[in-house]
Amino acid sequence: MTVIKLLDSGDVDFKERLAALREYEQGVDEEITATVKTILADVRRDGDKAVIEYTNRFDKRSLQAADEFRLKSIAGAAEGLPQAMLAALKAAHSRVEKFHTRQLERSWQYEDEGTVLGQQISALERVGVYVPGGKAAYPSSVLMNVVPAKVAGVDEIIMVVPAVEGQVDEAVLAAAEIAGVDRVYTIGGAQAVGALAYGTETVPAVDKIVGPGNAYVATAKQQVFGVVGIDMIAGPSEILIICDGNTDPDWIAMDLFSQAEHDEQAQAILISPDADFLRRVAQSVEKLLPTMPRAEIIERSLATRGALIKVVDIDEAIALSNAIAPEHLEVSVDEPQDLLPKIRNAGAIFLGRHTAEALGDYCAGPNHVLPTAGTARFFSPLGVYDFQKRSSIIHCTPESSATLGSIAATLATGERLPAHAQSATYRVDDFNS
Amino acid sequence: MTVIKLLDSGDVDFKERLAALREYEQGVDEEITATVKTILADVRRDGDKAVIEYTNRFDKRSLQAADEFRLKSIAGAAEGLPQAMLAALKAAHSRVEKFHTRQLERSWQYEDEGTVLGQQISALERVGVYVPGGKAAYPSSVLMNVVPAKVAGVDEIIMVVPAVEGQVDEAVLAAAEIAGVDRVYTIGGAQAVGALAYGTETVPAVDKIVGPGNAYVATAKQQVFGVVGIDMIAGPSEILIICDGNTDPDWIAMDLFSQAEHDEQAQAILISPDADFLRRVAQSVEKLLPTMPRAEIIERSLATRGALIKVVDIDEAIALSNAIAPEHLEVSVDEPQDLLPKIRNAGAIFLGRHTAEALGDYCAGPNHVLPTAGTARFFSPLGVYDFQKRSSIIHCTPESSATLGSIAATLATGERLPAHAQSATYRVDDFNS
Repeated sequence: MTVIKLLDSGDVDFKERLAALREYEQGVDEEITATVKTILADVRRDGDKAVIEYTNRFDKRSLQAADEFRLKSIAGAAEGLPQAMLAALKAAHSRVEKFHTRQLERSWQYEDEGTVLGQQISALERVGVYVPGGKAAYPSSVLMNVVPAKVAGVDEIIMVVPAVEGQVDEAVLAAAEIAGVDRVYTIGGAQAVGALAYGTETVPAVDKIVGPGNAYVATAKQQVFGVVGIDMIAGPSEILIICDGNTDPDWIAMDLFSQAEHDEQAQAILISPDADFLRRVAQSVEKLLPTMPRAEIIERSLATRGALIKVVDIDEAIALSNAIAPEHLEVSVDEPQDLLPKIRNAGAIFLGRHTAEALGDYCAGPNHVLPTAGTARFFSPLGVYDFQKRSSIIHCTPESSATLGSIAATLATGERLPAHAQSATYRVDDFNS
Repeated sequence: MTVIKLLDSGDVDFKERLAALREYEQGVDEEITATVKTILADVRRDGDKAVIEYTNRFDKRSLQAADEFRLKSIAGAAEGLPQAMLAALKAAHSRVEKFHTRQLERSWQYEDEGTVLGQQISALERVGVYVPGGKAAYPSSVLMNVVPAKVAGVDEIIMVVPAVEGQVDEAVLAAAEIAGVDRVYTIGGAQAVGALAYGTETVPAVDKIVGPGNAYVATAKQQVFGVVGIDMIAGPSEILIICDGNTDPDWIAMDLFSQAEHDEQAQAILISPDADFLRRVAQSVEKLLPTMPRAEIIERSLATRGALIKVVDIDEAIALSNAIAPEHLEVSVDEPQDLLPKIRNAGAIFLGRHTAEALGDYCAGPNHVLPTAGTARFFSPLGVYDFQKRSSIIHCTPESSATLGSIAATLATGERLPAHAQSATYRVDDFNS
């Protein structure tokens, strides 16, 4: 019995087994939904007072006043880091910033028979970035959420991070300083989401909230959606590897591990037309697993949600991948660029045997906040475009208004909206008089 | 007593009165939420059978089999329209298509020290467009929802429209034909949303659902969000007009009406530094109201949610407008382009005295599906970008993988993710060996 399941796309029950593999525990129950609803209502009504109460209760703190949960300054936070760590963080920041600068969209206008048309594109004014506390506090995640907002030109970036027993990870604060966060509040959970959405005496209301969090945070973000913008609702992390069978099986096994070590619900799938290669990867998994510090989590993840899938050829592998729409897709073959046009649904695509998915998590440049659970069919990686919004522009001359007004009046009349028609017709008549 | 309130930004209670004006009945209660949940679960479990049952119950039909709710063809639907209507619809379609073609985003790649980075941008595969039945069936809305999907290159566009007592508006079907809808199902409500989200034996599952609907439809879209993408949650329609006082007050009154006639909760606000002009607009409102076929709705809307607001100057008008973030903004002044850079939050901006908002509803080119209820702070007009999604691309050489791998391994180790580090280090060691 191997750690990870071996499937064959030719098996009669393949579709059902794959579907079963794709399922996961959402972790949000009606109790969480109701608790979050109460917390949000309390924060909306009582502001700082509610934030203090919940923070003291959930984060084991003893705050007396709201100014105690605002960090005076994060200047100098980066200096405390070990030299190698600081250098790596700065290198990652610089690369991520460079990539994201390419995503910046600019306003445009053109003239069409006298009418000026276009879109004015501008940055959101104020954004909240949620950063989890404790062991899930990742400085890389701070960079990935803050940099696109910064590149977009957001006026003010506010970070919230729970300080359980008063402690905040220093690497997280360092990343916040490097990325250019404007203010930090040491609050978390649904109460922090509520504070950002509705504003309190101390925390200003933002236009959008991004960043990962536990089930309470995710539920709170869903509940305030519409009052503010939010990013995607994230499911467990996923990797899908398509391999022709010629990559070192140890590398592929470790790439699977790098996803599986995130959490027991993470998903790692390898697809190959080479049955012998799949067996060799299974052997590498057996061999390498005992060497891993997070072996228990990896084993659980691979056993419940992992799979090695035998297919007929690479084309079938791609079709399967498109149907799964994975968060991360490694294409471990000789000429991976040739396959790119066939790939339709994936959050990020890692081309070639040397492009480990982990490079994308930290420093290649693209964002590591990616659509999960099949949502790459319609969602995109977090990007600068998530922190910009558009306003359409229409500017008619008296003449072009007369032309357009006749069409509009006809259609408005057909839709039984006479004020629409009259509003257009006033201008038509004015031009013709 | 005038129909519409006169406010002054200098009034001590101005902020409170404006906030009260901004509130509206969301119309979604816990009963609707629970009903929708049941309908969606039934459709997910029983497919066509559930769709048929709910359709017969809510739309007074007597369907026996699923093939009865699929329209065989919409070819020729446009021919049945009056000539002027058909010409106007075609002209509108052509203009809307032309504008949206400018929004098409294309894949990009660049090389950075050996590493190829970029984003592959592709169309969603299958999209569902919800069209309301009965009096709320607007052909213009069909165009505005279908054209951006078509321009994006969506493979298959599926329209659902309830056929109450078997009837579908012919102009709606004509618009569907002109815009290039691939299939039409005569179903509506939460059951149609469920069919599109989960798929049935007859209705294929889509990647995204767009289009307006009643409280049941909106709630259903919210509940399936994540399984599929959805467009914005729309509130009542809004217009905000900034005027220097030199536009014909009848024109401005009619522009306010054109929003107010949509529904009693629609919002129409005029802001001007010219107190006398505001009084003249109020007189125009009194004078013109009795001439309007939809006078009752207009009066109710203006009385409860409308306002004429006196400000100190145009700059204050813009600041107020930015805070409100209206769906439609008319800038009725001499040199409106000069004010554009100051306008931060608005769905669509109509520049100049001759640019009636109604032109944007039908045929100017930009989309009429716009963010409402202040969400223009973070949402954009519906566009081609809503039907495209991005996949990040990373392609390292063995050498660039070694460079990036060292950075990634340092950061991964710092985040206590050793498999991430090892996965990168395998490639670093390979290059260095």
